[in-house]
Amino acid sequence: MDVRGLIEGVLAGDRRAVARAISLVEDGRPELDELSAGIYDRTGRAATMGLTGAPGVGKSTAAAGLIAHARARDLTAAVLAVDPTSPLTGGALLGDRVRMQDHATDPGVFIRSMATRGHLGGMALAAPEAVRILDAAGYQRIFLETVGVGQAEVDVAAATDTTIVVMAPGLGDAVQMAKAGILEVADIFVVNKADRDGAGEVARELRQMLHLGAAREWEPPVLMSTALEGTGIADLADAIERHHTWATTAGVLDAKRRARLLREVETLAAERFRETASTVLEAAGSALAEDLAARRVDPYRAAAMLVEEAARA
Amino acid sequence: MDVRGLIEGVLAGDRRAVARAISLVEDGRPELDELSAGIYDRTGRAATMGLTGAPGVGKSTAAAGLIAHARARDLTAAVLAVDPTSPLTGGALLGDRVRMQDHATDPGVFIRSMATRGHLGGMALAAPEAVRILDAAGYQRIFLETVGVGQAEVDVAAATDTTIVVMAPGLGDAVQMAKAGILEVADIFVVNKADRDGAGEVARELRQMLHLGAAREWEPPVLMSTALEGTGIADLADAIERHHTWATTAGVLDAKRRARLLREVETLAAERFRETASTVLEAAGSALAEDLAARRVDPYRAAAMLVEEAARA
Repeated sequence: MDVRGLIEGVLAGDRRAVARAISLVEDGRPELDELSAGIYDRTGRAATMGLTGAPGVGKSTAAAGLIAHARARDLTAAVLAVDPTSPLTGGALLGDRVRMQDHATDPGVFIRSMATRGHLGGMALAAPEAVRILDAAGYQRIFLETVGVGQAEVDVAAATDTTIVVMAPGLGDAVQMAKAGILEVADIFVVNKADRDGAGEVARELRQMLHLGAAREWEPPVLMSTALEGTGIADLADAIERHHTWATTAGVLDAKRRARLLREVETLAAERFRETASTVLEAAGSALAEDLAARRVDPYRAAAMLVEEAARA
Repeated sequence: MDVRGLIEGVLAGDRRAVARAISLVEDGRPELDELSAGIYDRTGRAATMGLTGAPGVGKSTAAAGLIAHARARDLTAAVLAVDPTSPLTGGALLGDRVRMQDHATDPGVFIRSMATRGHLGGMALAAPEAVRILDAAGYQRIFLETVGVGQAEVDVAAATDTTIVVMAPGLGDAVQMAKAGILEVADIFVVNKADRDGAGEVARELRQMLHLGAAREWEPPVLMSTALEGTGIADLADAIERHHTWATTAGVLDAKRRARLLREVETLAAERFRETASTVLEAAGSALAEDLAARRVDPYRAAAMLVEEAARA
């Protein structure tokens, strides 16, 4: 594959190149090293937003509304929809395709579902690289939409500048979300389907849980929306803007980006080291593998030996 | 902490020592290295079974039935209930406590919920070490019960000798389970609550999906049970026995245990290496961290450098 050409395409904002580059990430191809090196100094300009919440709450509809809002201000936008817990989906995502369809022919909008088929470390590592590709391609607003409210989804959604949690009456309760650690990572809450019974109750319950937590410099607002009608989307866009301004001014955004970059590199390094360990252990006649099988060396000692071994090599 | 005394307690089958040792695993304490080394050569005797399935299908009730079956044959048994996606639960597990209560005062039975509060690599690494503790303590049948049907749960449940998937009419559909890769890892399927409408339909749908897959040496049986009344538990125990005999005779069990041991050690080594990488990157004034922040070195290159660096140190 001509990676140089692909990099040039991405940097020129060519949609087909962007799509192919994201497929490289999905598949965890070795060309990723060169791709990553070729685009990295052109990243860091986009504002990134994570949208998480239970299936059916209206994340895609909210994302479509935010895209329309961005486009009205002449900003380009991209949506990346990921399901971190399933390696097989991708196509089944972007549930509210009808709404997204409004933007399908707009050259200033890029929409993509993403699965992990081979990337080491799964979506936690694949998503940030895909976001950097969209960033390098010039998209100014990047929405990372996840499915579900488990730990993996929360981790992915939190790896953005502004994390938005979407809720709706009757879909996923606050206690479950609290368990997944959402209260700690959310910058903005939106209770969607606000025209339905129980929306006010959801917002009240949520505000109560937030008040139980420690005081924070940024108090996450709890907004109401009916995304299908576009109601509340402007408020949400304003809240994102306010959060971004606050985070930039307070130095929080730089610190957050740096911290998540270092964590990503640590995870990448760990995954690379796993391959080194695997090569040693799974070589035919590996003495360490035999010692393990014969219970002469325990797993924790074997792991420590592999790390020490690498340092001595 | 007196780890030597703890090890002796575990090997003597002392319940309090076993409980404390599992807490060490949950917390990811440094004493784990010594504990692991102290018990490892006394493991490998237990038969391990993973029970997975959607919340409410009756996993705990089935486990309780299997325990009664084992006890009737004078075998000791342990249940470890884990929720890999939530670091905060533990107490909320073992939903069917009433059934489990039947065994609570039996000295030949050990029941424990487990969370991960600090173990590197989460439940995927914590669960196998906890199982080894129970094994070294002399429990002959160990049931690993997980909550939910996501990727993480399936990974944990599959890290046993025999993986049992429990289903029930109206709770979790076969398509969702197929997505999580359950069809590939299950050795036995049980449709529980067989007295309810739709149980036959669930079994039929499942058999159809299984027939679509490639032919396998071991064809997972699809059983029916009403665990609350004890119906079908003897069949399930027989199926486990048959699977165990087949796997032992065909050499599958040894190969499976060895493969999952090597994978565990690789993951442990990767997690240890992550700490090494973290020490380098997060040291004050780290040149590599500065290069990353200034976009002079991209994340993939930085990860490769950390691995090369370790080899040169």
